[in-house]
This record gives sequence, C-alpha cells and structure tokens, in this order.
Amino acid sequence: MAFQLPSYKHPDFEQEPFRSAPNAQIVVVEKEGVAPQNYHGLSIYPEYFKLNGEWILASESRMDGVPVLRTDGTIQVVEFRNLQVSDQVIVGRTEDGHEGIYVYANGFRSHDPNSDLFAFRSGRSRETAYSKDYNELYELLNYERDNGYIVWVLGPAVVFDYDSRQALSALISEGYAHAILAGNAMATHDLEAALFGTALGQNTYNQQSPPNAHYHHLDLINKAREAGSLKTLIEKESIQDGIVYSSIKNKVPLILAGSIRDDGPLPPVIPDVYQAQDEMRKHTRKATTLICLATQLHTIAAGNMTPSYIQKNGTIRPVYIYCIDIAEFAVNKLRDRGSLEVTTLVTNVQDFLVHLKNNLV
Amino acid sequence: MAFQLPSYKHPDFEQEPFRSAPNAQIVVVEKEGVAPQNYHGLSIYPEYFKLNGEWILASESRMDGVPVLRTDGTIQVVEFRNLQVSDQVIVGRTEDGHEGIYVYANGFRSHDPNSDLFAFRSGRSRETAYSKDYNELYELLNYERDNGYIVWVLGPAVVFDYDSRQALSALISEGYAHAILAGNAMATHDLEAALFGTALGQNTYNQQSPPNAHYHHLDLINKAREAGSLKTLIEKESIQDGIVYSSIKNKVPLILAGSIRDDGPLPPVIPDVYQAQDEMRKHTRKATTLICLATQLHTIAAGNMTPSYIQKNGTIRPVYIYCIDIAEFAVNKLRDRGSLEVTTLVTNVQDFLVHLKNNLV
Amino acid sequence: MAFQLPSYKHPDFEQEPFRSAPNAQIVVVEKEGVAPQNYHGLSIYPEYFKLNGEWILASESRMDGVPVLRTDGTIQVVEFRNLQVSDQVIVGRTEDGHEGIYVYANGFRSHDPNSDLFAFRSGRSRETAYSKDYNELYELLNYERDNGYIVWVLGPAVVFDYDSRQALSALISEGYAHAILAGNAMATHDLEAALFGTALGQNTYNQQSPPNAHYHHLDLINKAREAGSLKTLIEKESIQDGIVYSSIKNKVPLILAGSIRDDGPLPPVIPDVYQAQDEMRKHTRKATTLICLATQLHTIAAGNMTPSYIQKNGTIRPVYIYCIDIAEFAVNKLRDRGSLEVTTLVTNVQDFLVHLKNNLV
Amino acid sequence: MAFQLPSYKHPDFEQEPFRSAPNAQIVVVEKEGVAPQNYHGLSIYPEYFKLNGEWILASESRMDGVPVLRTDGTIQVVEFRNLQVSDQVIVGRTEDGHEGIYVYANGFRSHDPNSDLFAFRSGRSRETAYSKDYNELYELLNYERDNGYIVWVLGPAVVFDYDSRQALSALISEGYAHAILAGNAMATHDLEAALFGTALGQNTYNQQSPPNAHYHHLDLINKAREAGSLKTLIEKESIQDGIVYSSIKNKVPLILAGSIRDDGPLPPVIPDVYQAQDEMRKHTRKATTLICLATQLHTIAAGNMTPSYIQKNGTIRPVYIYCIDIAEFAVNKLRDRGSLEVTTLVTNVQDFLVHLKNNLV
Repeated sequence: MAFQLPSYKHPDFEQEPFRSAPNAQIVVVEKEGVAPQNYHGLSIYPEYFKLNGEWILASESRMDGVPVLRTDGTIQVVEFRNLQVSDQVIVGRTEDGHEGIYVYANGFRSHDPNSDLFAFRSGRSRETAYSKDYNELYELLNYERDNGYIVWVLGPAVVFDYDSRQALSALISEGYAHAILAGNAMATHDLEAALFGTALGQNTYNQQSPPNAHYHHLDLINKAREAGSLKTLIEKESIQDGIVYSSIKNKVPLILAGSIRDDGPLPPVIPDVYQAQDEMRKHTRKATTLICLATQLHTIAAGNMTPSYIQKNGTIRPVYIYCIDIAEFAVNKLRDRGSLEVTTLVTNVQDFLVHLKNNLV
Repeated sequence: MAFQLPSYKHPDFEQEPFRSAPNAQIVVVEKEGVAPQNYHGLSIYPEYFKLNGEWILASESRMDGVPVLRTDGTIQVVEFRNLQVSDQVIVGRTEDGHEGIYVYANGFRSHDPNSDLFAFRSGRSRETAYSKDYNELYELLNYERDNGYIVWVLGPAVVFDYDSRQALSALISEGYAHAILAGNAMATHDLEAALFGTALGQNTYNQQSPPNAHYHHLDLINKAREAGSLKTLIEKESIQDGIVYSSIKNKVPLILAGSIRDDGPLPPVIPDVYQAQDEMRKHTRKATTLICLATQLHTIAAGNMTPSYIQKNGTIRPVYIYCIDIAEFAVNKLRDRGSLEVTTLVTNVQDFLVHLKNNLV
Repeated sequence: MAFQLPSYKHPDFEQEPFRSAPNAQIVVVEKEGVAPQNYHGLSIYPEYFKLNGEWILASESRMDGVPVLRTDGTIQVVEFRNLQVSDQVIVGRTEDGHEGIYVYANGFRSHDPNSDLFAFRSGRSRETAYSKDYNELYELLNYERDNGYIVWVLGPAVVFDYDSRQALSALISEGYAHAILAGNAMATHDLEAALFGTALGQNTYNQQSPPNAHYHHLDLINKAREAGSLKTLIEKESIQDGIVYSSIKNKVPLILAGSIRDDGPLPPVIPDVYQAQDEMRKHTRKATTLICLATQLHTIAAGNMTPSYIQKNGTIRPVYIYCIDIAEFAVNKLRDRGSLEVTTLVTNVQDFLVHLKNNLV
Repeated sequence: MAFQLPSYKHPDFEQEPFRSAPNAQIVVVEKEGVAPQNYHGLSIYPEYFKLNGEWILASESRMDGVPVLRTDGTIQVVEFRNLQVSDQVIVGRTEDGHEGIYVYANGFRSHDPNSDLFAFRSGRSRETAYSKDYNELYELLNYERDNGYIVWVLGPAVVFDYDSRQALSALISEGYAHAILAGNAMATHDLEAALFGTALGQNTYNQQSPPNAHYHHLDLINKAREAGSLKTLIEKESIQDGIVYSSIKNKVPLILAGSIRDDGPLPPVIPDVYQAQDEMRKHTRKATTLICLATQLHTIAAGNMTPSYIQKNGTIRPVYIYCIDIAEFAVNKLRDRGSLEVTTLVTNVQDFLVHLKNNLV
C-alpha cells in the first residue's frame, strides 16, 4: 500500500472566538538576545496570530522559539540568542485564540486513513508491537525519497556494527537521506572502520581487538586533521565505504556538531554548539521526515527545532518524526518534552537499520 | 560457509597429576534430599572423576547438581531435592585432578577455527557488533535443524508483535525447534492473539485496543480451561497460527511452567515448579543449542541445567547457548552465574526473530 | 505532619441510573474451574452489584477475579481455578451501573488533603522528584505500624548489600512489617549472608569472594534441608541477623513461593505456585499498605491480588501500594496493568531501604 | 576510621630493562594541531620517559593526550588541537620501558590497607553491595575537604528533586566542592527551581505542574540573559538556594559548557566545546577526587582529562574517581574506556546525594 499524505484543514476563522478576537500584541526587543516580558513561546504545532484583523500562520515553527513579525508581514521564529534590537515579538500566553494567538494541534487529524499516525500512544516499550510502525515507515520513506526531505540524526552506535554500517551507507546511496546531523564521535568511528576495520579499536565484524588497536581512533583523527578535510582524507586514504564516504559521494549535507567529550576534533566539526544548532536548523526546517537513532542529546536538539508541519509549495503537510533507542527512558524523554507527534521504537538501532535496508534497498 | 562442529580433545590422563591422583572419595546419602558434607557441586563443564583407577567422564552435567556414582559405573548428576538415601555422592572441592576430580574447561578450544565462539567476550552491550554473531547463528541453526536438538526458552515478549510471532511460528514449522520451554503467560498471549488478534487486549499489529478487549486475556484462559487441553481448544476454535499451534501441529514438545503471577492457568501448565524443572531438564539434557529470549527467570533456569557439552553417539560436542534480551543487566546476569560459554545479544527480540526468519526460512 | 486516613464516600444509589437499574444477572458454574460465559471480571476498585434491589459492595476485590454470590448474601471474589460447580457468578461487562454492576474509582478522591496520593502521575522516571513521596511514605508507615497491615514483597536484591539488609531487618524488628512475601532466592541469599557473610559467594560488605565461596549458596541450602525448617536452622547455626531471622523472631509471617530457577529449595518454600498464590492472598486481602521491592513477577502477582480499598471494622479505607525498582520498564509494567493507584519510585532498593531505616527506626 | 592516603612507590629504574633502555625518541610537530606519526598517546597512569639518560615522570596526564618535552625539561600533556609547530613530541607505542617509555599502573598498589580501592571490580550492577563504597567515600570526602580538590561533574538530574538539590547545596556550602563542571541544563533547571519552585515546569517537591509552568524554563533563561550574569540575576531576584547560588556564594568555580540541545543559553555558558574542555581541564588537573553524577557525556569528558595520580607539593598521590548513574550501561561505558580506576555506583543520584548529606553535613 503506497503512502498517502494526509490533507491539512485550516481552522475556520469565521467562527468564534476567532472572529471577534483582538489582534495579537506586539512588543519590540530592547536588548539583544532578550525577549520582552510575556513573550509568546512556540510549540511544534501550527500557530496562527491575528494581525491587522487577519489570522496569519507562522511560516515555520520551533519549540521554544519566539514569533517575530517581519516587515513583509510574515511571522518568523527566532531563538532568544538570535533576537535583535527592534525585533517585533508577539506577546501573550494563551493558545485558544481569544487573545489573537491560536495553537492548532488537530489540522491533520479528522479525515484521513493515516491519521492514527498522530494518535497518542501511551506506554511504548520493548513490548509494544512494532510491525505496523515498520511497514508504515517503509512506505513513508519510499514516498519521501522522491517527494520529501529526510533528515537523519545519528548517534555513534550506528557505526559500531558491520551490517548496520553497511545498511545505513546503502540507504544513503539509494537516496533515502537528504541531510545527516551527527557529532564528532559518529564520524570518527565511521572513518576508523573505513580505514582500520575497527571502531574504538574493536573490529566491527569479529569483535577482536588487534594489538595497539586503541590507537586507531587517535590515528584516524590525526590523519584527518593532517588532511585538512574529510574529502581530502577519503581521497588520500582511498576510503570507499561508510556513512561519511556515502554522504560526501552522494552530496548529502553532513553537519557535525562538537561535543564536550570529543577527541580531535575532525576538521569539519563545528566547535560552537549554537552555531551548530543554526546549521542543523537549516535542514530541520526543510525536513519532512526526521529519523533519530541512538543519541539522546542530538535527538532532543533536532526534535526541538522540528515542527509538526511544513509549508511547501503552498500546501501544508505533516512532518514525521521517528526516534529509535534501546532505552525506554530515552524515547520517553523526547515525548515528555511535548513532542507527542513522535513515533518511538525501543530496540537496538543495528537491527532497525538492517530491517530498513532489507525492505528498501 | 557451512557450520563445522569443533572436535573434542580428552585430557591426557597419563600425565601428572592425573596419573598418581587417588580415587575420588564417595560418601552415601543419609537423609533424602540432603547431600553429605563436602559434596562436590558440578559446573557446566565436562568433569572427570577417578574411580577404581579410571578417569570417568560424568555422563552429563548440570550447574550445582551433585555427582552420584551408579552401580553400572556411570556418574549421573542429581539435584539435592532428588537425592535418595544410599546414593553414592562424590565429595571433594578441588578441580585440578589431584583429589580425583577434574573440571575440564578447554576441551574444545585449542584446535578449531570456530573456537572463538568460546572466547570470553567482555562488556557486551547495545554497542557490541553483532553481525558475526548473527551469521554464525544462521549457520549453526541450519546445521542443528538436521543434526542437533534446538531448545527455545521463551518469554511472553515474543508474541506481542505480529511479525515476530509469525517469524517464530515459521521457524517452528520449518524444523528449527525441537523443544520449547515457556510459561503460562507466553502461551496465553499467543492464543489470545490467535483467537482475538490481541495480546493483553492490544492488537498485535495496529496497537489498538477494542472496547472491552482487556477481557480477551481472561476469555481465552476460560475457553482453554473449558476445552480441557490446548489441542482441543485449537480444534474447537479453529486456531491456525502462532507458537502453540505450530508446536502442536509439528509435534514439538511445549513445556509450560507455572509462575507466581499467572492467571488461569492454561490446562497443561505445571503448577509445581520443581516438577516443571524436571520436565524442562528432559529437554535441556538433549539440547545441542539453547536459545533464550526475553525471560530472565526461565533463562537462568534453563541455563543452569544446560551443560557446555553433550555426549551423543559416542562423541562429545559443545552445546551452544544464546541469550537475547534488551537489557544489559539481564544478559550479564546469566554470564555472572559462571555460564561464560554464552553468546549474548542485546536487542529487542522482535527484531531478532524477524532476522532469523528472513535468513533461515 | 501526621498521616490522616482519607474518608470514603459511598455512591448515591438514589440517583440514576442506579435507582432504576435491574438486578445484576447470575449464572451458575457448570464445570469446575471454568466461569460461565460473559462472567464479570473484577478490577482493583470497589465494585457494587445490585441484588434483590440492593446495591451490595463486594466484600473484597482481586484483579481478574470473578464475583460469586454466597448464600449469606455476600459477594466474594474467586479465581477461575477455585470456582466450584454451582457457584453463582455475576455476569455482565458494563461498569456504569445500568446493568446492575458499578465500578467506583473515585470513592476517596474528592474531599481530602491527601487525595493527591491517588492522582494519576504520568511519566515517572529516574528524573521524577521523589522527596514528597518519601515524606508521605514515612508518615504512612508510622500510621500503619499501629493501625494497618504492611505487606512487603521482596526480590533478592534487598539482601545483597550489608546496609540495606540491616535496614530492612531493623524495620521488621520495629514493627513495620506484618507479612513478607518472597521467593526461595531472597531467603537463600539472606541466610547465606547470616551464615557466611556472603550472598551468592560475594561478601555483602567488602565485595570480596573468598576461595570456594560459590559453595556457600549450596551449603546453606543443604544445611537448611538437613535442619528441616528455617527455625531449626537458625537455632542450630546460631543465626542472629537478617530478614528471615527477624521475621521468625518477631512472628512476622514469611511466605516463600517457588520459582522455576530455584536451587534447593529451602524447606518452607511452596512448590505449587497457585497454592503459593492462595497463601499470599491471605495476607494481601488484609493489606493496608503493600511495598514491592525489586521483583517484577512477585510485584505483579501481589499487585494483582491487592485491591485499592479494604473494609475493616465497618469502614472502608484505601490500600496504598508502592513499587520500587531501578528500571522504568518494571515500574511502568505494574501501572500498565491497570493498577494506576500505585506510587512508583525508580531507584536502587538499597538506598530506598536505608532511607526508610534512617527516618523510621 | 579516618582516611589514609596510600603512598606511592617509584619504579626502580636501576633494574632492567630500564637501565639499558635507550632514550625515548622525539619528533617535532610540523603542522599545527597534528601530531607526528607514531606519536605516543597517554593513558591515565603515571608515565615515565627516558630523556638524556634520566627517567622523567610526565608532570601530569590526560587520556589520549600527547607528551611534549618542554625546554625546561618537563613533559607536558597536550591535546592534538593544541599542538604547536615545533613542539617536541615523544613518539613510540610500547609501554614496558624498553623503548624509553614506561606506563606504570601499580604505583599505589602493593603496600597499603586501602589498596583494594584499586582492585578491578568486575560486573558492578544494581545488585552490587555498595555499603563499603559509601563508607569509604564519606571518609575520603572528609579528608579531601581540607586536603584535596574535589571536582563535581553534574548532570541535570541532580536538581529535579527538592531533597537532593538541598543536599548538594549543603555539601557545597560545607566545603565539599572545590569546582563544579556542568552544562546549561543543570544551571537552568537549578535556577528555575530557585525562582519558581519548578524544574522544567514541574514542582520539585510535590510534582505538580501549575498552569503555564512550562514557561518557567524559558522565563528563567530570559531573565538571566537580561541580567547579563548569574551573579546579577541572583541579586536581582533575591535567589537564596541551590547549586548555582551556593557555588557563587562560596566562590566555588562553576564551569558551564554548551551542549547541542541547549535553550538560551545562560550568560556564562561556554559555546565552544573545546574552549570549555580547556576550562574544565584547569580543574581536573588539580582534582584529587572527581565525582560524576548522571551525565554520560560530561563524565566521559571529565574522566578523559583526569589522570589516576597527581603530583602535589613534591609527592604523588592517587586521584579517586566516582561515577554514579542509574544505568549499568552508563557506568560501564566509562570503565570500558580504560578508566578502570573508577568506583561506580548504580543508583538514582537523588538518593546518593541525600546519603552524602546525611553522613557529612
């Protein structure tokens, strides 16, 4: 069964309380990086603001961002740290429309056979039945490969195992990834596997640790720093497999953010985490599907900046978010943040990736 | 690459300290169910005892069992509770031969390409590379289907999901199971899925809970008790899929042990856990491969009664034990018991089973 | 602040739909151990049944038990396996009263400062704030020691550590336990600690493993079997500390149920799990507070047989259930069963017990 | 029993192979941030290098750093990224002395009653006995308060609960912390608790979520950014409790590193993670005890930069590292890195902190 995009139904602003609601209030920023009191904080849902008597949909969203009215009449979403003096911030903390602010959580729900994708699923655990989630994901990814923008968020666990590393590389090569967000560790271990067959010194296939193999990790980093870029490293060392290789070869953007426990780092890693957030958000704001694997911090980071909808070519469609982790605590953490529109699977990402490859490639 | 059985090398008892060691000492049981002081407790390894100047291999083993010399000269392994007055128990707590007792942990190790199956693998976790373990298991199971005795130990988690329940059923139908050890819960949820499509009231495919579906669990139990046997239930209700169905249809013995949290129970469940142990041991003593899925207690129970070797048709071969669980704590627990000869995989058993089916059936 | 028992408010059966509801229907049992079709299954909440025009409260409850009308007009709760031919079972699967069956979940809620003990607390995890839960539990236990019936359900983890084993022993000695439900493993490790200072061969204080200490476990079991009873063992071996010792000394009933992975077992362990359930239920039906520590199966077993209320001396009061485990999965499992009236703490039971002792003894 | 520092025994370099070993080889850095081929990577242990016929102890260590010979004859430890052109790097990958490089893991072991603190403790889990570890830690901290440098590494979980937040604050006030390493999240939630009584919108004592309390988190950040510094914020808002308050009041350095999932950030958070590492290392190189609570990344970060020994006032003493986390996976991860000299406790950090306060303050 092919995937079908659910349609979006705008609220009926001819009804009350919308019709007689006042315009949303606006206060300007007086200090760089600081919002005015009573600023409105955005959710992951579509939010409408009444301005000049019209209900305007924010052009995008981002959890905990602030809505800023631009001179062209659009509403953009800005992080505190990026607020500029004179920015026009919408203030108010109600969500039901009567103050000119309306958070609309049900736009995709009512009239669609796929609408159960949005149902609140309580208590997902290792014992939840995941067959249907897998099948829906296969269909979704086949649709998204050609019609969407699939963003992967990767923890290092995806490259420790031979089969799963190959599986993910194949998915990238076959067009199932439009951007990859990760950190220094994932890229380091992946390149170590390409160059030495090991990850953190242990062979990714037979689990053996050759003598002095704990140096592989550092040697890879040192070689990469000497090469000056991952592209040069790959050429110099004739690397021909893995996540980094497949990304570069297929021109899939690879954003690597720095982390406090990094060795190295590799050349393209962004040391400033807020600058890294800005780079990540360039892709999450285009994302139609987000798949987060075995990384709690990057998952929350990317999840926070990914709204539940996207405007594309004049239409509004849902954004699908998946989070796969072996720990219930980790997947629940994302949902507890308010990102209820997330499909979580509790399993080892190795097996998850091999399933995807088997069913897609 | 086809699986090859490693050969076993007997100890060289012409060497010291074996040659000049005394006979092992024997003390008779004086009270039923109580071993004499200083009794020898068995391990999972081959153990030899010097008797009448000859080194005799115990005909089988069982962790924490007691070696009893029978009148026919064989050494059998008996649990405390099964000791009878006058049983001749071997006493002594050394293991290196100098008191006539020799525990032999290296019989399969030295000269075999598959010997790394026996290596101590420290720190297996969600981040261990499992590709090779999967591949070796596929080869092993293909060999064992025709040449061995594969015993499955199942927790209820194997039947909560549609695909994994189908996968395991297919493996049973295709001959990959020679006996199944489980509890009331696994069988109950499996039959609920067969009859109502739900497990504990939740649909095993789409996760939905129809109205009053929490009654399905009890209704299934009540119907089974009314039928009087699972075979009759399956006929009466025209059940045609699942673990219980496939076991019965393919005449695979299914041992169901009672547990303190059971509802019901189903007709064939054994209420006395020690009697259930005896029934389980009938199969573990024949086992050449043991696969334990998502059940901590049954895994330890079966692991305790499964030795690392088996004598079959005059030859001695290793017994392969696998333990798959999503929690590191659970798989480590088995290894901490001394069962180092266990291959553990940390993942969701749903995915594990679907992989097996994809690669075997 | 001293603990105050919330008062119970009976439903107003003068209102509709109660007033004009028909009597509940009754069907008699035709086969031993099998309920009639459409039998009513009980919850943990107070349930009222209309009989002869009167709304009668079941005298007790038990999850998944069946309501049976006795000739004296009382309604008792019977497990399937204990149903006798001619038992009068109430049938019907609605809960709102209109068929003569009313499940009443809010009897304690409306008018009490402690009523938040009953609130649904979503998403409890390692990051939940537990200070208030601890404080309320201290107050509750001080009240219950003199006015209630505190039942402990213990996994073996409570005796592996020196301080926590001492803490729990002290709580028992000081009157904070009226019954203890556990298995062979808890008692075995506890007595091994009393006799040898080790649990499963490892010293409970300094973590060291003396030579051949893995025999301690078996030696203890063998000595206990020789002694014939735990009381005799304690006298013979001059044991003076621990859970078993404190229970016996203070005449606190100790129910030990058999489990599939038991060695031994110890003399008083009940091999038949359903007989063990019957023994456990003798105490859970008296329980006013139930505290379950680090044992998934026994927790579910005891939780299933413990209702949310108890009738005592003509009044109805709530039963408080606590479940403490280090795994979110384990504590959520109990809640997923429908036992929402449970306070769960995610932590190591060692620390939990030491806190209790520090604040109570 | 008071804590006693174990003495350190230098290797006997008059013995072979030390005596006739060649000098260690040196190669100069040719490219900034890149080590010469075959560079030596440091461990957490004391390492000696033969230079001009003398065995010189590196003045400090840092896992995976590179030893650089300074013109004053000392050996310093430099991260790749901080290597400068012309730095003299010691090369060679043997550790036993015969190439002029000696890694010395046993300096504190042989002759000391506390030496078991250094024993390899396999398989620590939720079921390990922790009583002795607690007692030793109490003694250690009392010694270190006056004679050492205690560095805390804190995940946000330490401030979600009322009692544990108070406990840690008291420990800081009483002199048990000489530096604190954490991230934006810990400080944000702590200050939210100080200002609103909530953490991420949930009351830290009674778990309730007042209306719109999810704004507290953002409001706190916004106020802090407006204040411009945490000190000013605390004064302006009259904050009088918590981790941040106690640190500032007691002049305990508080290093806050940025993370990819941060909101805000707070004013003093260091956005560049490598600069943050440099700031952290200023304290870890002074650390005599390191206590890491519920933060996987910061724990590995700090653990990597903390050696197993420290030279102070001419003597060499051990550095004690503790890691407390509720997940076995997290604590094992640190040990798998090679940091075997770590004492790990598997529990909820809330309870751990309250125990510390009860026994120290």
